Amino acid sequence: MNYPSSIKDIYQTILKEEDLGAIATYIPELAKVNPNKFGVHLITKEGFEFGIGDYKDQFSIQSISKVLLLSLAYQLLGDSIWSRVGVEPSGTAFNSLIQLESDLGIPRNPFINAGAMVICDLLISQLVHPKEDFLEFVQNITGNTDIIYSKKVAQSEQKVGYRNVALCYFIKSFDNIKNDPEEVLDFYFHVCSIEMSCQELSNSFHFLANDGFRNIHQEEVISMSKAKRINAIMQTCGFYDESGEFSFKVGLPGKSGVGGGIIALHPDKYSIAVWSPKLNDKGNSYRGMRFLELWTSKIESSIF
Amino acid sequence: MNYPSSIKDIYQTILKEEDLGAIATYIPELAKVNPNKFGVHLITKEGFEFGIGDYKDQFSIQSISKVLLLSLAYQLLGDSIWSRVGVEPSGTAFNSLIQLESDLGIPRNPFINAGAMVICDLLISQLVHPKEDFLEFVQNITGNTDIIYSKKVAQSEQKVGYRNVALCYFIKSFDNIKNDPEEVLDFYFHVCSIEMSCQELSNSFHFLANDGFRNIHQEEVISMSKAKRINAIMQTCGFYDESGEFSFKVGLPGKSGVGGGIIALHPDKYSIAVWSPKLNDKGNSYRGMRFLELWTSKIESSIF
Amino acid sequence: MNYPSSIKDIYQTILKEEDLGAIATYIPELAKVNPNKFGVHLITKEGFEFGIGDYKDQFSIQSISKVLLLSLAYQLLGDSIWSRVGVEPSGTAFNSLIQLESDLGIPRNPFINAGAMVICDLLISQLVHPKEDFLEFVQNITGNTDIIYSKKVAQSEQKVGYRNVALCYFIKSFDNIKNDPEEVLDFYFHVCSIEMSCQELSNSFHFLANDGFRNIHQEEVISMSKAKRINAIMQTCGFYDESGEFSFKVGLPGKSGVGGGIIALHPDKYSIAVWSPKLNDKGNSYRGMRFLELWTSKIESSIF
Amino acid sequence: MNYPSSIKDIYQTILKEEDLGAIATYIPELAKVNPNKFGVHLITKEGFEFGIGDYKDQFSIQSISKVLLLSLAYQLLGDSIWSRVGVEPSGTAFNSLIQLESDLGIPRNPFINAGAMVICDLLISQLVHPKEDFLEFVQNITGNTDIIYSKKVAQSEQKVGYRNVALCYFIKSFDNIKNDPEEVLDFYFHVCSIEMSCQELSNSFHFLANDGFRNIHQEEVISMSKAKRINAIMQTCGFYDESGEFSFKVGLPGKSGVGGGIIALHPDKYSIAVWSPKLNDKGNSYRGMRFLELWTSKIESSIF
Repeated sequence: MNYPSSIKDIYQTILKEEDLGAIATYIPELAKVNPNKFGVHLITKEGFEFGIGDYKDQFSIQSISKVLLLSLAYQLLGDSIWSRVGVEPSGTAFNSLIQLESDLGIPRNPFINAGAMVICDLLISQLVHPKEDFLEFVQNITGNTDIIYSKKVAQSEQKVGYRNVALCYFIKSFDNIKNDPEEVLDFYFHVCSIEMSCQELSNSFHFLANDGFRNIHQEEVISMSKAKRINAIMQTCGFYDESGEFSFKVGLPGKSGVGGGIIALHPDKYSIAVWSPKLNDKGNSYRGMRFLELWTSKIESSIF
Repeated sequence: MNYPSSIKDIYQTILKEEDLGAIATYIPELAKVNPNKFGVHLITKEGFEFGIGDYKDQFSIQSISKVLLLSLAYQLLGDSIWSRVGVEPSGTAFNSLIQLESDLGIPRNPFINAGAMVICDLLISQLVHPKEDFLEFVQNITGNTDIIYSKKVAQSEQKVGYRNVALCYFIKSFDNIKNDPEEVLDFYFHVCSIEMSCQELSNSFHFLANDGFRNIHQEEVISMSKAKRINAIMQTCGFYDESGEFSFKVGLPGKSGVGGGIIALHPDKYSIAVWSPKLNDKGNSYRGMRFLELWTSKIESSIF
Repeated sequence: MNYPSSIKDIYQTILKEEDLGAIATYIPELAKVNPNKFGVHLITKEGFEFGIGDYKDQFSIQSISKVLLLSLAYQLLGDSIWSRVGVEPSGTAFNSLIQLESDLGIPRNPFINAGAMVICDLLISQLVHPKEDFLEFVQNITGNTDIIYSKKVAQSEQKVGYRNVALCYFIKSFDNIKNDPEEVLDFYFHVCSIEMSCQELSNSFHFLANDGFRNIHQEEVISMSKAKRINAIMQTCGFYDESGEFSFKVGLPGKSGVGGGIIALHPDKYSIAVWSPKLNDKGNSYRGMRFLELWTSKIESSIF
Repeated sequence: MNYPSSIKDIYQTILKEEDLGAIATYIPELAKVNPNKFGVHLITKEGFEFGIGDYKDQFSIQSISKVLLLSLAYQLLGDSIWSRVGVEPSGTAFNSLIQLESDLGIPRNPFINAGAMVICDLLISQLVHPKEDFLEFVQNITGNTDIIYSKKVAQSEQKVGYRNVALCYFIKSFDNIKNDPEEVLDFYFHVCSIEMSCQELSNSFHFLANDGFRNIHQEEVISMSKAKRINAIMQTCGFYDESGEFSFKVGLPGKSGVGGGIIALHPDKYSIAVWSPKLNDKGNSYRGMRFLELWTSKIESSIF
């Protein structure tokens, strides 16, 4: 199976189809993006790379950051983090608050907003400069110091993110946030504001697909066992209430963001990033989902 | 990695540990089983087999049957079944009824009781003798005509299964059961009453782990694409509200039953059945979960 | 304030307004009723009566029966019944099942379907001929042996009442139904099938408005304290998730039925029955609600 | 029936019983109160007064304030407020957040925290000095300028009231809070911090029990129709998830506060305030509930 030509073929097929998604408008800054952007980039375990379309344009990776955030926390704090956050899928978005209530403030997993806030809180307790240290971690595993926070996006979210403020104070009321909620929210909004290109994104997740779980510089980022477990959580919880659907249709661990990016990876083989800003009604990139579904069908290879 | 010796080692390790589970008592017939039974059996894609302990004793496979039930329906009816049942994890057990209500009677996935009842209903509409035909399908893929329904277990469940009766009529009220609920329940309770040994169980799931998705007689059971998708649903939904935990710790698609059985499989490599009747507080075999966690740690191989 | 002329005025006013309700169709037999029927009947504590429109036509009183059912059970069994059913409003209809689950099978109050089923179960355990005995009780307090069950309506509900079957088995699964669910359901469907005219209905509730809580024959039906408590439950729970609205706008204890009937009463003053089959979107008679709102506004007298 | 001697008798009876409540500790300032305080004060429609025990000691009336807050908003803004908040009981506390979610940010009634916050928001939009104006309104209807906010209690709640902060931002996310959530919370915490004695409390509610709904100075506070409706909401929603129980056992409209105060009133007859800081497990004063239950039993007079 030829990877580059397969990517080219699918990319062309999808370009000809109508884009049935709609751009996210609830964060004013994100609404300004060109809705027709479409890029794909793949890097194999062995380091071969191939990109197409707008794969060099940076975009807001949003929730995809939560996987890198978890990676840093898991590396630093080990399995102790699982007393503060679970590893179960959350069912419908609809249930998020009632679940937090019945679970006494323990979020179901680290990839829903509530869970990522708890991870932020853990890192604030651990690090002197959490914002700087997290950015450095991301730059380091990607091998690229151009990656930065978007102050504009962080501020734009902070201004309208009433529901996230509600969530953070609700967890605090169960004492599962230890620091000042305002500090946690500031860190959280920054984490989500990181911008990367498809190329940088696939590179940043390379370590999770790489035998020995080393990054592109062949340095160990986290242990193999921890990497496998992060992949497992992506598999069951990476796409909100479309996680089962993604697992069913694509068959790879992955994570989406409301900026239209999706990362997916085949352990021991490759990581692949797709970006197209218009979202389906579950909040995942319409063309991104479509691309990856055609991709694993065409190459007849998923983890299942 | 030597599979037989690894299985032997882990089996011995666990025998020395205390069994912290408790036997299920809500189905009177199941409560009669010897709680100390413990068996393991593995079959590789290539047909090599290895068993230990009580791997030749038959036990009630209960919910594990739901995977075989789905396989038959998916083979016969194709993707049309997904308009009647979803592929998303269900979150907590707690939410099952409210989710059915907000989802207008469409169960979240085919492995929760509600979903399996809808699959039963689909097969009743399709087959002249659903109970006989399903049993024949199971016997055929396993290559073993000794497998039968346990009338005693089916009747025992029928007698006390008030909650399942409630569930079936509730779905009927949304018109997502087309046949007489009593007939659906009778089929459902029979499906769950099938008895197999670990050896038969691993053999019956061989086709889902086998390249080309052929069974042990090298006949195609279902298409490769459908088999991958069934594996994907097992990965996200196979262990109720411990699905994420199983994915996290074991990293294989699998399915548990309240009789203490667990099936797990590594696509393209093997299927493995474990049986130990005492359950943890999530309703999954305590020793079964423990065995499989040690197993994928020891052989350092999961799908992630 | 002249009661008869006020009733006449309001009746005429409403006749000129458009009837914005819609007839209930989920019970086939009920859908056959003439949607333009409209009757009102009032009886004072002292026994004066006044009726207008179709107040002599019998109709299916449906859930209104639950108050009479509770009255019989409360008289026979006293406060012991409150260990099996609560006295709290149920919030939204939406929550009924999840509340049953979190409340371990104890229905919130005796006027939701679940609660009335538990009362049926209590009476079945207590009486040799529950159906006959309940009918006799109703005939007796109304002073009218013409009141009977409608076999047609009972059978019509039994045929399509899947949700009620689900509810009954669900409560049984918590062991808060002691008898055979089929027997409970049969009694329940009969209770709901009673037919009365507005005149009979206001007469049957006379005892709850009458000083000393005697019926129209001046015999004590239940103690004053029990009658006050039944009125209190009607006030908070009589109109499903429109109970607060009815209390707010009308200010009287009352109970509605899906057949389009409403009973309301002013303790120590009168009971009043209204019937008009077309329902608002909460399942309460559109014209019935409208009539009673204008009624307590016009006579400037509610319990508040 | 002699009111003063009945009050004396019941007061003595309860003093001899064990106080099975426990003091609220989640607001640090409230935990400092003497748990053995116990006072009662009644004022009749005609202005006769009788008090016993600690009826002249001021205490934190907490949620009881919400009725006075609603009265001011209803007087100023009329029925337009009902597009922003409902009049239905909320079912269990448990459901508060999920109900807000399914009701798109419209609180069920003005006496749950969420509803009172929306009322605060309405008054902030309407008044130049909401805090000062509300206090003046309360002083005016009570005829007592000694009533003030407790800065200590307001600050104490502000410091630990994470759940209320969460609630306010959650409603804001549905755009049903129009002003800055911080300003709404500041007003809300002040409203709840008002301190009154039993005597002041029964006087402040006199207008809701008084024919013509005039206050103790015979000035109209709100129209009779509005007063009746506020009483109706107290009847169905005044005691959180014990509202039905209070209606059932006491049979009067009323409102409780977490400071141990309860106000109840019999329209056209009297208002009565009881204070005892130790709470039952539903958060209502144990002795307050007990006193009022014995009271309406003894005088054989409730609104039902």
